[in-house]
Amino acid sequence: MIAPVLKLHRSPRLTLVGAGPGDPELITVKGINAIKTADVVLYDALVSTEIIQLIPAGIPALSVGKRAGSHEYSQEDINELIVEFAYLYGHVVRLKGGDSFVFGRGSEELEYAESHGVTTAVVPGISSAIAVPASANIPVTARGISESFWVVTGTTKSGTISADVALAAQSTATVVILMGLKKIREIMQLFESKGKGETPVAVIQNGTMQHFRPDDA
Amino acid sequence: MIAPVLKLHRSPRLTLVGAGPGDPELITVKGINAIKTADVVLYDALVSTEIIQLIPAGIPALSVGKRAGSHEYSQEDINELIVEFAYLYGHVVRLKGGDSFVFGRGSEELEYAESHGVTTAVVPGISSAIAVPASANIPVTARGISESFWVVTGTTKSGTISADVALAAQSTATVVILMGLKKIREIMQLFESKGKGETPVAVIQNGTMQHFRPDDA
Repeated sequence: MIAPVLKLHRSPRLTLVGAGPGDPELITVKGINAIKTADVVLYDALVSTEIIQLIPAGIPALSVGKRAGSHEYSQEDINELIVEFAYLYGHVVRLKGGDSFVFGRGSEELEYAESHGVTTAVVPGISSAIAVPASANIPVTARGISESFWVVTGTTKSGTISADVALAAQSTATVVILMGLKKIREIMQLFESKGKGETPVAVIQNGTMQHFRPDDA
Repeated sequence: MIAPVLKLHRSPRLTLVGAGPGDPELITVKGINAIKTADVVLYDALVSTEIIQLIPAGIPALSVGKRAGSHEYSQEDINELIVEFAYLYGHVVRLKGGDSFVFGRGSEELEYAESHGVTTAVVPGISSAIAVPASANIPVTARGISESFWVVTGTTKSGTISADVALAAQSTATVVILMGLKKIREIMQLFESKGKGETPVAVIQNGTMQHFRPDDA
């Protein structure tokens, strides 16, 4: 489907930018600067409209958004597009929700680009794993109470619940489970079977998607 | 030492702002906006000079910085200062390195302020736990390889190594140990005793403290 790569641009490069957990003000200054110097942008469905509007006028910008159930572009398509666009246009900015390295498949894109001679950089983003509990005033660590936190995916590549969830249930860590809503019953049973039936739990959906300002308080 | 609180300001409030892992461009837009609306700022030693310079001219700003070995202000002093300043000046911005809720003792400050009638908000920051490995191109998760990550402190409140480190050594998680350099020998032995003697390891100090720009590439 995708045409062979035309080696046109002399300095093909990729910057993976984490756009943060939803609130458009939770992107970093470095992330904004990367967008402003982009020659082309590929962005995910989870990136907010306000951040998309920062893309310089007149440059190509393509939504390669994946939402549960709708996969217009496969990960392989995205990898190829990055390389193709880097050689066609120069600086590709790949905008992802949250942080590219926290279940964002950023490492796959980075490795593919590098193996095709594209220079890469990573701009970290605020991960929902920490920021969404924080926005509900839940600290992932608290001195003397929780001295570690464990971030686990509810659903693995194979579609099953991660074996790490069972291990996490035995630990003293604050356990943060992403993409776990479909498995919530299984997860609950797992924690109950490890004697954690009384552990306080928060279930948060669309956390920080609402644009809140500290100065509204 | 600290004078009794004078209830002067009608809307005392506190915003905890995570300033990120060192690189001054890794603060969020929301963090900058909070600083710009501050009436007084309390900041940690780890916050970069460039970020300190964003503090509006003419407002009080106080370094309450803690570095290993030098504790001019105790946590109790800082808690009291926050409340006192909120009632004296209005909007206190508390600037911390990284993220306030990742071993930042942010929850203690928040609770203390709330219990004294101060309105609170939290602006998450980029945590070194994720960003520093990322800056060395080490993803904390990689599909099919590592489907969770566990962030542990090397040194707990009691000064001993966290019991969670032993549990983490048995898991399939990417284990990120903060404040662990003094315990590195113990940590290594722990992983070896759990059959993880061949596990790839990176030891990073002052990660992202160097100001790097993706467009320098």
